[in-house]
Amino acid sequence: MRITEMHITPIALGDPPLLNAAGLHAPYCLRTVVELKTDTGLNGLAEVPGSVAVDAALAAVRAIVIGVDPLNWHALRAKIAAQCTPELSVARGDKPWDGRTRVQVYSALDVACLDLQGKACGQPVANLLGGIVRERVPYSAYLFYKYEGAGGELAFGTDPNATGWAAARQKAALDPDGVVAQAEAMVAEFGFESIKLKGGCFEPAQEVAAMKALHRRFGPTVPLRLDPNALWTVETSIHYGREMEGILEYLEDPCRTQEGMAAVRRALKTPLATNMCTTSFDDLPGSVKHASEDIILTDHHFWGGLHSSMELAAFCRTFSRGVSMHSNNHAGISLAAMTHLGAAMPNLSYALDTHYPWQWEEIIVGGRMKIEGGCVTLPKGPGLGVELDRAALARAHENYRRCGFTERNDEIEMRKKVPDWKFAQTRW
Amino acid sequence: MRITEMHITPIALGDPPLLNAAGLHAPYCLRTVVELKTDTGLNGLAEVPGSVAVDAALAAVRAIVIGVDPLNWHALRAKIAAQCTPELSVARGDKPWDGRTRVQVYSALDVACLDLQGKACGQPVANLLGGIVRERVPYSAYLFYKYEGAGGELAFGTDPNATGWAAARQKAALDPDGVVAQAEAMVAEFGFESIKLKGGCFEPAQEVAAMKALHRRFGPTVPLRLDPNALWTVETSIHYGREMEGILEYLEDPCRTQEGMAAVRRALKTPLATNMCTTSFDDLPGSVKHASEDIILTDHHFWGGLHSSMELAAFCRTFSRGVSMHSNNHAGISLAAMTHLGAAMPNLSYALDTHYPWQWEEIIVGGRMKIEGGCVTLPKGPGLGVELDRAALARAHENYRRCGFTERNDEIEMRKKVPDWKFAQTRW
Repeated sequence: MRITEMHITPIALGDPPLLNAAGLHAPYCLRTVVELKTDTGLNGLAEVPGSVAVDAALAAVRAIVIGVDPLNWHALRAKIAAQCTPELSVARGDKPWDGRTRVQVYSALDVACLDLQGKACGQPVANLLGGIVRERVPYSAYLFYKYEGAGGELAFGTDPNATGWAAARQKAALDPDGVVAQAEAMVAEFGFESIKLKGGCFEPAQEVAAMKALHRRFGPTVPLRLDPNALWTVETSIHYGREMEGILEYLEDPCRTQEGMAAVRRALKTPLATNMCTTSFDDLPGSVKHASEDIILTDHHFWGGLHSSMELAAFCRTFSRGVSMHSNNHAGISLAAMTHLGAAMPNLSYALDTHYPWQWEEIIVGGRMKIEGGCVTLPKGPGLGVELDRAALARAHENYRRCGFTERNDEIEMRKKVPDWKFAQTRW
Repeated sequence: MRITEMHITPIALGDPPLLNAAGLHAPYCLRTVVELKTDTGLNGLAEVPGSVAVDAALAAVRAIVIGVDPLNWHALRAKIAAQCTPELSVARGDKPWDGRTRVQVYSALDVACLDLQGKACGQPVANLLGGIVRERVPYSAYLFYKYEGAGGELAFGTDPNATGWAAARQKAALDPDGVVAQAEAMVAEFGFESIKLKGGCFEPAQEVAAMKALHRRFGPTVPLRLDPNALWTVETSIHYGREMEGILEYLEDPCRTQEGMAAVRRALKTPLATNMCTTSFDDLPGSVKHASEDIILTDHHFWGGLHSSMELAAFCRTFSRGVSMHSNNHAGISLAAMTHLGAAMPNLSYALDTHYPWQWEEIIVGGRMKIEGGCVTLPKGPGLGVELDRAALARAHENYRRCGFTERNDEIEMRKKVPDWKFAQTRW
């Protein structure tokens, strides 16, 4: 089997005005869909965070990809590493998301090749990762502080005809009461059994008050997480971490650097999770040296794919770290890949993050995947178990063309609301 | 697909009187062949070191194995871990080989399930481990000090009609000249491009003299290794290690414990390899803490299978350790599995060990696998690419029944030659 075509399709999906440490989500989030076709008539899919940089990086490896055997991921990865390392070696940025294009190229091709391998073998991708530990993969509610508005075509407007979660999703959430109301609507719709709040938006005391309000509302049986995206100092992290002892399942990236996280960890009983201080295999020796976190949040888009994420899971088992999963905005191809990974990881110790409830469009056949009882059921069928809805893909690509965004920049978007707003690496 | 039958067949293969730190190889080495059959008519093979303890451990999990889906290794492994951990948790012994039955049970089932998965998918096992990095997998010549004799039915006698390597294999090698002559014959027959000597048999000065003789005979382009099986003290290791600086590719397990190895490593430029101080995932945190070795010798029989060995390879890549492979006596099913692993490990940095030249019998269709130019070419065909020769298996099982050995015990065998010989953990 040989790869004969590689299609790279940037898309834009409507996204509400969600606040985070880097600013404000634009009305559209960007993703890039990669489709590999083979001489045997199969097609393999993947989806990665979208930007012109990622699209260019993917286009730059197309000549290497065409002609290779998709059953041999190691050979393809070695080819890319040998020929393209310099131009793809972008260091991780300071933003809460991850700008390294090399790992995203690896991820796209690893996932698409596994989809092809699964289809060629008649097996789900999870079996090619060692087997299905769970058919129903648990996700966490992912709350955001947000401005009022729907995003997408409505930009910052709202759809008055929306009902249920679609209506709740449009409402502002700028204080603890707003956060609790959002949680109630999201949990009612999707049945999530754990809850995460994206922090780093307001004074720590306000965000801690929101966590306490969630704890009062949902009680001790619903695990809670707060993610200030490393905007706090070590001292702030310890101070407010202590205020939340006993309330949080874990505190995610309160501050920067492995040394900083280690200092906080020594002072708190609450476990610390990270997708900011330990984000690559190169960071793992430092993680061991500093004992910087209790839980590593894998993300196959940023750890180089599903095979690599399984290697990370093995590291976590060996070095007594828990495993959970980070998320950015995404569509169904990524959700399927995340779910196969979650189904295959023996030591998955926490419900996974997903932004999925914040989108409403889809690019896969059958439309939106279901989240029921807080879980996504492993898609049936070989490979990832999802197929492209080509009309929907064309619409999402047309959105991309029309919206004019070429990369994620929450700072620019935030300035439309707060003109002199500036991103800070450490704020409180 | 479900597993419907699990067959456990102990076998004995003729083995010459090879010396090592634990004593002397008996005239037969023991292996156990595991065969899984499925409701779809497939059969999956594996081979592990043989003993009544391993056979009993395998028999104890049969009830768990029957009925499971062999495509789902994670689920089967979890079942075994949940139900059988206590009785299988045998600690690693002090002998140079590894007595833990639990990892051997995991290994047998992981390999046999991968063989089934490969056959079900029409793919080589190496592709199910991520892909084929090399079709020709390099092995190292594995020299032994030995008494004269053929082993097997001839016990300590010799076959006067033997020619070539089969004749050379029978000769004694008890000093540097004997070791060099053995190396010449083995390299001429198999084309090995690196050479290992099993040490721990004689005074260190004699073994060091043998390495120097090999270096003079084969020159600086043939990498050399010496394995004293941890019989040396730290001081002896440093002293003789310094004498061999510049001659060895690596020095394997000169002494015991991660701390001891780390002390030697700090004193030498020669890299240290181990299959004795870092032998399990539980040992990896200590390996990082002490920096005890440069190279880890995986062995899928003792690290829990091929999936686990790939996880070990990822650890070695992340923590800057080289990867090579340990061997015990084995037949073609193990050689095929070792070769698939060697074909799939991206960071295989050294030629692998194999005892294969010391045996002459086989249990697979087609007889002895070829070693040419020091390499084994990845078997063609799906799965492991080997099938049982049932008549040969029956003969090898009959050998087992007849020879009366129930476990490996080189000390007892050695006493037949040197009546008061005693195993010592540290000798020089």
